[in-house]
Amino acid sequence: MEQKVYRTELTPLSFLERSALIFPDKTAVIHGERSYTYQEMAERVYRLASRLRALGLQKHERVAFLCPNTPALLEAHYAIPAAGGILVAINNRLSSPEIGFILQHSGSKYLFVDHEFFPLIEALNLEQLTQIIRIDDSGAPEDPYEQFLAAGTPEPVKSWLEDEEETISINYTSGTTGNPKGVMYTYRGAYLNALSEVIESGLNSSSIYLWTLPMFHCNGWCFTWGVTAVGATHVCLRKVDPSHIWELFESEKITHYNGAPTVHIFLAHHPKAHRLEQQITVTIAGAPPSPTLLAQLKQLNMRPIHVYGLTETYGPYTVCEWHEEWASLPQEEQARLLARQGQGYVTAERARVVDPNMQDVAWDGATMGEVIMRGNNVAKGYYENPEATARSFEGGWFHSGDIGVWHADSYIELRDRAKDVIISGGENISTIEVEQTLVQHPAVLECAVVAIPDETWGNAPRHL
Amino acid sequence: MEQKVYRTELTPLSFLERSALIFPDKTAVIHGERSYTYQEMAERVYRLASRLRALGLQKHERVAFLCPNTPALLEAHYAIPAAGGILVAINNRLSSPEIGFILQHSGSKYLFVDHEFFPLIEALNLEQLTQIIRIDDSGAPEDPYEQFLAAGTPEPVKSWLEDEEETISINYTSGTTGNPKGVMYTYRGAYLNALSEVIESGLNSSSIYLWTLPMFHCNGWCFTWGVTAVGATHVCLRKVDPSHIWELFESEKITHYNGAPTVHIFLAHHPKAHRLEQQITVTIAGAPPSPTLLAQLKQLNMRPIHVYGLTETYGPYTVCEWHEEWASLPQEEQARLLARQGQGYVTAERARVVDPNMQDVAWDGATMGEVIMRGNNVAKGYYENPEATARSFEGGWFHSGDIGVWHADSYIELRDRAKDVIISGGENISTIEVEQTLVQHPAVLECAVVAIPDETWGNAPRHL
Repeated sequence: MEQKVYRTELTPLSFLERSALIFPDKTAVIHGERSYTYQEMAERVYRLASRLRALGLQKHERVAFLCPNTPALLEAHYAIPAAGGILVAINNRLSSPEIGFILQHSGSKYLFVDHEFFPLIEALNLEQLTQIIRIDDSGAPEDPYEQFLAAGTPEPVKSWLEDEEETISINYTSGTTGNPKGVMYTYRGAYLNALSEVIESGLNSSSIYLWTLPMFHCNGWCFTWGVTAVGATHVCLRKVDPSHIWELFESEKITHYNGAPTVHIFLAHHPKAHRLEQQITVTIAGAPPSPTLLAQLKQLNMRPIHVYGLTETYGPYTVCEWHEEWASLPQEEQARLLARQGQGYVTAERARVVDPNMQDVAWDGATMGEVIMRGNNVAKGYYENPEATARSFEGGWFHSGDIGVWHADSYIELRDRAKDVIISGGENISTIEVEQTLVQHPAVLECAVVAIPDETWGNAPRHL
Repeated sequence: MEQKVYRTELTPLSFLERSALIFPDKTAVIHGERSYTYQEMAERVYRLASRLRALGLQKHERVAFLCPNTPALLEAHYAIPAAGGILVAINNRLSSPEIGFILQHSGSKYLFVDHEFFPLIEALNLEQLTQIIRIDDSGAPEDPYEQFLAAGTPEPVKSWLEDEEETISINYTSGTTGNPKGVMYTYRGAYLNALSEVIESGLNSSSIYLWTLPMFHCNGWCFTWGVTAVGATHVCLRKVDPSHIWELFESEKITHYNGAPTVHIFLAHHPKAHRLEQQITVTIAGAPPSPTLLAQLKQLNMRPIHVYGLTETYGPYTVCEWHEEWASLPQEEQARLLARQGQGYVTAERARVVDPNMQDVAWDGATMGEVIMRGNNVAKGYYENPEATARSFEGGWFHSGDIGVWHADSYIELRDRAKDVIISGGENISTIEVEQTLVQHPAVLECAVVAIPDETWGNAPRHL
């Protein structure tokens, strides 16, 4: 491949190389009593990569990880691409058969498993695997994962990357029907999305990021790479335990964490909840934050950012950018505005809401349509699944399956998953709209609205 | 060209499109009594672009601007690429013959000239130009520039961009000998550098950026695009008048400005200088800040960032990233550390200091070598000047002509321009090293050391 003086292939590995160069002694990772500097993190990554190469890993060979948010899984986000492989970070909440399907479908040759999840794979037929490496997450020399690293070498591994559009990872996502689909991310997409997250969350070298969001979920929305890009500190977390998290907020002086509203609700209602000295930027996705939750977060000195995306969009694709003039509006109005999904990130194209002919719906906040997206924040397709790829990426756009409206100010707002719309008396009822109305009541924390068969109406909404 | 669902060509035009979409009513540009919202800025840009298209502008045709930091020159940074042309922003401090050379060499067909600089072109033979448009910078309907815009249309112009490696601008740079060379920037480079500046300077939608740095200089280090990327506000400035700038710091609540140490020194020593309520992030390039200046800036509530680069690197390429532990060191030691040029930006490759065989010099802070750079922060070459391109970009790296050392902590530090090294008694003397020693004296504000012929030593240093 021609080497141009003015071009470097975009790869998030450069973020680790740079932070290890500039901040070698700075704390890169904290995990309980253990911590690693950027120099140490880089050396561990190169050990893992060089060991895999020595074992015969081929370019683009898949390497699977089944872990909670530990240093090992973070290291994998650099070591597997550094070795030239493709990372498959498996959702640890899946059942054994689903995990078996993913291992087989991805054709993974290596599997790294945290000790906690070892029972999940014991009953599986794993003949296709060359090696299974157990991670005790102890950091001690007898930990099989540490022994694996010890057999590698700490020097940088020569890159095999030729084109930034090569696949860096495959993230399996489960629909309601059928087998999980493997969403392919590119080096270019991972790089640009990581920078976007840095900009949207305001990460810098003083930031301390707490890993409440699973790293297996869209590669942790690319924060696995973004936090490293600015030389900030990753605080790992085996599980979301609100009491422990409140301790970490203070002991580690956390500045950022991400999660679904449920995570934030658990935290806001914990007995240890109190106003923090430092401000924490909290990014919320998965469902719109309720007015009650937003008010609570502010009281705790948390700055909420509401984003929206899917596995096929590297995690967040849109953000509800805050307008300074909203601050003077009544709380409920602020919450209503912030509950919208907003518009594309700085590296994303405009998100559109379209009718079945892929024409934009009216920007009237009422006409429903499907949300579609394309460009650098959209994945390459589904691994070895051309039918599903053709269907979901038809017409050059990714079809989210999410139903929303387009407001006059360009912001989009979700109304439902296509399959969740309740058809009652022939009329479409948005479950999200009913939910958003219910959560405005201060006595309601969270709610979910589903369709119940009804003799008169066909379906009728019920809240749980 | 194949349209991939997961790829959008990187272009900084997307930043304006996005900010006009998300922040239509937010102030994009302030210029004295005038101001434009993002919606207005976008419409003015499309008017300029559509008018040029209507006049027959061809793809990649050059369009020259000779202006101070006015809205017109900022608009040009979007309108010329939007039209499919290539922007040539000319240094307004050049002489008439130099400007004539640039117009001719670039083959510009259109020239936009601010009224203040009209005398500079009056004596030139401008036969090759299709049209000269005078900018009165009044914003009034009778301003010829405003009339030009009025003849255009405010709707988005269909993009002709096919490849992000196309040239977006040509920035002419003068060496000490020979004619100016036209440094070609790509859409990809402009985009990535703009994002880097956002991250390094910590720009966000609340930022108010003051245009002390000339926009003709490396396209304003890509801040022309970066400030827009986050929906921040540009405050234009016809000239660097310290008294006026101190007024703007307060009246416009400025949060960021950039410049050479001289600009900062003028400001720090002005009678109006006083500690500001808001913190201003000031990015310093062109020469290392002295300990005296750094101390003064801190007292004024300014946060200094020291960067280094050249026209061939889109402006800044390296940054002296701050280490928190430095804050506990004595002031002189902090200043000594911050006077170093540091290492590559987040989107840049490692800057190297090499011997004449392009081998890395020892990381000993003493061995001198040439600073070389490559990758996405390096320009494409010199326009229609293959000899100079071959020379400066030899071996796949851009040769800066700057002489520096490489410290053990990976940071580089400049010692001299290759041509400025003083050879006295057969020994190399770094003018910068002598200068840095002199400015440590609190009575010395600025100094420059040059070689003077000497009977005994050949050359000897003198400070001015």
